[in-house]
Amino acid sequence: MIKVNENFLKLQAGYLFPEIARRISAFQAKNPAAKIISLGVGDVTQPLPPAVINAMKKAADDLADPRTFHGYGPEQGYDFLINAIIENDFKDRGVHLDPGEVFISDGAKCDTGNIQEIFGLDNVVAVTDPVYPVYVDSNVMAGRTGRPGKNGRYEKIVYMPCTAENNFVPDLPPRLPVGRQERGVDIIYLCFPNNPTGAVVTKEILAKWVDFALNKKAVILFDAAYEAFITGPDIPHSIYEVDGAKEAAIEFRSFSKTAGFTGVRCAFTVVPKQLKAYTADGRAVEVNPLWNRRHCTKFNGASYISQAAAAAVYTPEGKKQTRQIIDIYMANASSIRRSLTKLGYKVYGGVNAPYLWVKTPPGLGSWEFFDRLLQKANVVVTPGAGFGPSGEGYFRCSAFATPDNVKAAMNCFASVT
Amino acid sequence: MIKVNENFLKLQAGYLFPEIARRISAFQAKNPAAKIISLGVGDVTQPLPPAVINAMKKAADDLADPRTFHGYGPEQGYDFLINAIIENDFKDRGVHLDPGEVFISDGAKCDTGNIQEIFGLDNVVAVTDPVYPVYVDSNVMAGRTGRPGKNGRYEKIVYMPCTAENNFVPDLPPRLPVGRQERGVDIIYLCFPNNPTGAVVTKEILAKWVDFALNKKAVILFDAAYEAFITGPDIPHSIYEVDGAKEAAIEFRSFSKTAGFTGVRCAFTVVPKQLKAYTADGRAVEVNPLWNRRHCTKFNGASYISQAAAAAVYTPEGKKQTRQIIDIYMANASSIRRSLTKLGYKVYGGVNAPYLWVKTPPGLGSWEFFDRLLQKANVVVTPGAGFGPSGEGYFRCSAFATPDNVKAAMNCFASVT
Repeated sequence: MIKVNENFLKLQAGYLFPEIARRISAFQAKNPAAKIISLGVGDVTQPLPPAVINAMKKAADDLADPRTFHGYGPEQGYDFLINAIIENDFKDRGVHLDPGEVFISDGAKCDTGNIQEIFGLDNVVAVTDPVYPVYVDSNVMAGRTGRPGKNGRYEKIVYMPCTAENNFVPDLPPRLPVGRQERGVDIIYLCFPNNPTGAVVTKEILAKWVDFALNKKAVILFDAAYEAFITGPDIPHSIYEVDGAKEAAIEFRSFSKTAGFTGVRCAFTVVPKQLKAYTADGRAVEVNPLWNRRHCTKFNGASYISQAAAAAVYTPEGKKQTRQIIDIYMANASSIRRSLTKLGYKVYGGVNAPYLWVKTPPGLGSWEFFDRLLQKANVVVTPGAGFGPSGEGYFRCSAFATPDNVKAAMNCFASVT
Repeated sequence: MIKVNENFLKLQAGYLFPEIARRISAFQAKNPAAKIISLGVGDVTQPLPPAVINAMKKAADDLADPRTFHGYGPEQGYDFLINAIIENDFKDRGVHLDPGEVFISDGAKCDTGNIQEIFGLDNVVAVTDPVYPVYVDSNVMAGRTGRPGKNGRYEKIVYMPCTAENNFVPDLPPRLPVGRQERGVDIIYLCFPNNPTGAVVTKEILAKWVDFALNKKAVILFDAAYEAFITGPDIPHSIYEVDGAKEAAIEFRSFSKTAGFTGVRCAFTVVPKQLKAYTADGRAVEVNPLWNRRHCTKFNGASYISQAAAAAVYTPEGKKQTRQIIDIYMANASSIRRSLTKLGYKVYGGVNAPYLWVKTPPGLGSWEFFDRLLQKANVVVTPGAGFGPSGEGYFRCSAFATPDNVKAAMNCFASVT
């Protein structure tokens, strides 16, 4: 008799964004004339830059000709892209990577969801609260957690609250009580610039985390999908800018937000060769070959066209054009920040990140505010509670809408505030 | 302390195709002048048909214009592609699918590797021997197996030998001895047309498997990635052509071989709504929502360009053009079959499949023959032993090379035989 993976049955109601989509559909069905503006799901709206479009068409032409045809590529990705990444994203910031440390994929969601597979089920996982749901849900599915409590938190996960009090930067994780004993955390998910709060960390703070991980032999899974939105000169773009981080961290990057690739699908993950994990009897095992094996066994490489498109992001025109698009989004962020502040909202983020984290009006929970804003103003935001219990009483605004829609949404906000 | 997933340490030496690539590189490094012809890795060589190229360029143009821009698509895939699949691949064969039963992905390797996640770790897995390594390795990684024995077979997996004696169609699986007891199999991987043997099954034989699964409440994971190569009118293209199969099977399909998409990346998986799995206490759980949840949590949709390309395969021009390409490969298969038979080899497959399964000369093991052929004839084939112990003494020839290369490879074969 085929047994289900019962861990899936622990998962709470639908993944956040499908739930939002469901509520929008239900509202739209009842109000077909309503023009809904979304500052919700963090999806880009600007078309892809010409350098990228041209690269995709050239790649399509390559596939039309037997002399330039590309079938299966290396599962790890093409050298032309890996080398461009190492040269442009890391070298200038003093980080030297080996090509074998960079794994191209079709998305950071896949990579952050899949990475836990190479680690044992008995590791203790720590996440921030609020948190990008994929980190938690992928560990629930694998069986590293218990059931969710009334507050929505899963047993056996260590939650690190990020609130206005700690400037949305978590304190080092506490130990997990297990019966009468305690266990230290082994796997720590961090995301800076943060989704959903828009918070960033200095190199000094990040160094504390790296030291903690080195000391405890823990691993930091560092999601840097939003690094392109950093404006402050002293904010680290990569965790590897911190000494020793190669022995403590895996880093995730994506072209989704950097270059508008949400529909094109390309991302990458850095797994340093120095990084070790341990067997139950304490033997050190290199992590890089494990991820390589996982990647080669269950993935067949990102689309040639997507990889060619991603490489075009690093050309002089590509850099200039993607920078212009990022500037549009960051101007949106400033505009949302200014408008909502003027309306009396307490606003965080939006300076080094495309997300703004905003306090709901007194007495309104996240989903209540979501529903009210949808119904009265026809504007969609993301309910903070969807990212964890500490997100209750907040909502996330994405800066990825068009400037016109941002302006219109701010007017709608004004009308109901 | 971060613990490794020790199941990964049970895996045997490198995944088959990287190992082949390694041996080729080593040979090429020592013999830079040698012109190697590969009938090994099953990668296509014909350029993509014009209908597909045009669709990809049009999709790229869509992404250049804000009015037609596509960001995140539905994780499950675009309706335009799902509907084309249902209409063209299934309806004409009497199989009616609901759009919610079809999940678009970036590859059948990913889907066949990931599907096991939704099932419990205590299920007994049955695979054919020889077998596509992904089915086995993904279960080893998850922890459903013991260690490999001397014969390369993992403990706790039920192997179903496919040999010339049973025409490469396995007998119904035996029970797995567990201590003094026995357990029936719960998860059965089948692949027809078969990779690597090229064998196919009639509807009657497939019906026996479906009955077995229904009786035992087992699930069949049916890999139909090569269905486009079926030439016999009575060979089923989908397991759902068999009555009751929707309650017993998940089916995997791919555009990789059908339409030359190995570099483009698009595939799909059918998870019928009738299919059930069970909790430890016997409660039935629908499988479709579990896969949907897995898909939405760890995957962000296939590339818009790849999906647009796949939809073009179903246009009248697309159908005609992909048919012409398949005919080229099947002419290769006939030519290989004829040539090798003439040289005295015993050849199987290659009639309803792009693979030929060939007996090595007496006294030569699969890898010995591989090395000898590489060194003496500069031709690459796939060692049968790489697909499991019952593949020892065979090699796989792929029909995906260019007709010129097939001809040249056959001449090289003749020179060393």
